[in-house]
Amino acid sequence: MTLSDSLSKHENELTALDILSRTKMLVHPALVAATQRLGPELQPLASHQLSTGGKYVRACLALLSASAAGADEQVGLVGALAIEFVHNFSLIHDDIIDNDVTRRHQPTMWAKYGVGPAIIVGDALSTLAFQLLLDEATVERVGAARCLADAVQAMILGQAQDIASEDQPSLSVEECLRMEAGKTGALLACAASIGAILAGADDDDVKALSEYGDHLGLAFQATDDMLGVWGEPSVTGKPVGNDLRLRKKTLPISIAYAKGFDVFAESASSLDEELSDADVAEAMVLLDDCGARYETLELAEEELRAAIAALDRAPLASTARDELTVIARYVIERDK
Amino acid sequence: MTLSDSLSKHENELTALDILSRTKMLVHPALVAATQRLGPELQPLASHQLSTGGKYVRACLALLSASAAGADEQVGLVGALAIEFVHNFSLIHDDIIDNDVTRRHQPTMWAKYGVGPAIIVGDALSTLAFQLLLDEATVERVGAARCLADAVQAMILGQAQDIASEDQPSLSVEECLRMEAGKTGALLACAASIGAILAGADDDDVKALSEYGDHLGLAFQATDDMLGVWGEPSVTGKPVGNDLRLRKKTLPISIAYAKGFDVFAESASSLDEELSDADVAEAMVLLDDCGARYETLELAEEELRAAIAALDRAPLASTARDELTVIARYVIERDK
Repeated sequence: MTLSDSLSKHENELTALDILSRTKMLVHPALVAATQRLGPELQPLASHQLSTGGKYVRACLALLSASAAGADEQVGLVGALAIEFVHNFSLIHDDIIDNDVTRRHQPTMWAKYGVGPAIIVGDALSTLAFQLLLDEATVERVGAARCLADAVQAMILGQAQDIASEDQPSLSVEECLRMEAGKTGALLACAASIGAILAGADDDDVKALSEYGDHLGLAFQATDDMLGVWGEPSVTGKPVGNDLRLRKKTLPISIAYAKGFDVFAESASSLDEELSDADVAEAMVLLDDCGARYETLELAEEELRAAIAALDRAPLASTARDELTVIARYVIERDK
Repeated sequence: MTLSDSLSKHENELTALDILSRTKMLVHPALVAATQRLGPELQPLASHQLSTGGKYVRACLALLSASAAGADEQVGLVGALAIEFVHNFSLIHDDIIDNDVTRRHQPTMWAKYGVGPAIIVGDALSTLAFQLLLDEATVERVGAARCLADAVQAMILGQAQDIASEDQPSLSVEECLRMEAGKTGALLACAASIGAILAGADDDDVKALSEYGDHLGLAFQATDDMLGVWGEPSVTGKPVGNDLRLRKKTLPISIAYAKGFDVFAESASSLDEELSDADVAEAMVLLDDCGARYETLELAEEELRAAIAALDRAPLASTARDELTVIARYVIERDK
């Protein structure tokens, strides 16, 4: 039995928020300090991006990953910074691509500063991540930089698949999972193992942590897809059934499609416009009735269990393993 | 006396085109092969980008840099690939930022595939450059990756300064040179030294080659700025005085400004529109009369001499040094 099993949902959340707040106190000032390398034209934009918040889940995994391998969590700090910079780079570029004007209740980078500056500052943060890791020429640092480069490439491919899916009538469950593994899982897997890589851990430890991250990524994304349809508008800050409205090809849609229900094709709204309120309501009922909601939830929980089970396949330090479990549960049990 | 001194302009050009064509035969197939790592959604876009041509000057410098340090030029190949991918990434993103719809007589990436896919494929090529260098965990590879990351960051800063300059009434000569050193010089300096770094050369060799690249970058950019105003439209494919028309704050403008002539403020066209034909013609006369044309040309030649002189500050292999000299002269003597 893990620490997390013995905690109620509420207790788990409080413990997770504690761990994340400890992470933020360590990581945020170091992130701001690192942006000083960017020069006066870019530093204010990078600062603005960092000031918009974020949960620091990825940074947290990077620090815990070092502790899990028996090192001080400070050993994972440069990895945590690199991962957070890459995450912010991806948010900035994704917001341009998706034409999103607000994120975390604030204007997105491109909406505030223009597309050109937003492209540039994203490029700068991505590059800064590699500069930080390559500051020292050790085998551990190269390993960490390679892990990050591969994860970034997988993340970019997932985003490319997402763009390509807009022109496809539907995605199979497998295609949808592959896209989500790329978009979210790859960077989480790198975050969850980069601290161990920096600590010079055995391949087995690195592999177990990376698999934890892969499964957590799918659990995270399935949860996101649930909230995108059934999230409480007053909590998520988005309208009822927002992902349906925008015709996003998420997991519940693919699961329904596999059962013979083409949610978007069956709606009365024409193919190039948003779904109407009536169509959204009807689609929500359809997804519930055919079991797609239940199966998405089940998939998230299965992936959560697989993530936690992966941690048991290597002799990791027990405190860090417990905290990784708490964070994993928190990611699935969140409501926004 | 170097090989290049004994060649006429025409002979130098023929020798340079020989070296560049040898480079392309080696580098182009390897570039195409490397794009196979990108996945089916991105590979066709990357192939399209590589098929649009380019002179392979940067790749050539990377290969010669390995030979200059006494190694086989194959040692520089991975560096040449990484540099070319970064160069293409910067072209793709710059074309979005500058709203340019054609390059090398073909539609730009964003004009052909859309802004989202163009951002993504640029990100993928930049990341691919680091993946290639980090494929092997040696001290030389880390050094090369670090050199590249620093150069990319300097290039991005130069681009940010260029964007910021649009809102400034004028740039001093110093500001203009700093921006151009970033936009062009940093990547050329990395290209000219990355082969030597990969060959494990002494710091002195690397420094000499890097300084050659820095000076070549300024010579290259001053030449570009000359061609942007006085280039022959039938050769450059752009209208007479194109950079003036677009109010670009290039070197001749800054030199004239330092002499008390504010070229754009003095034109009759209003500040937010392109210069009229009459204003362009008048500005060209003004730049000629105040000596800005002559001084820009002189600066290009000074930087060319400084680039070649830098090569004499280290014991480089003589054939490679001669070829670096030929390439440097070619870059300055080109007419498009």
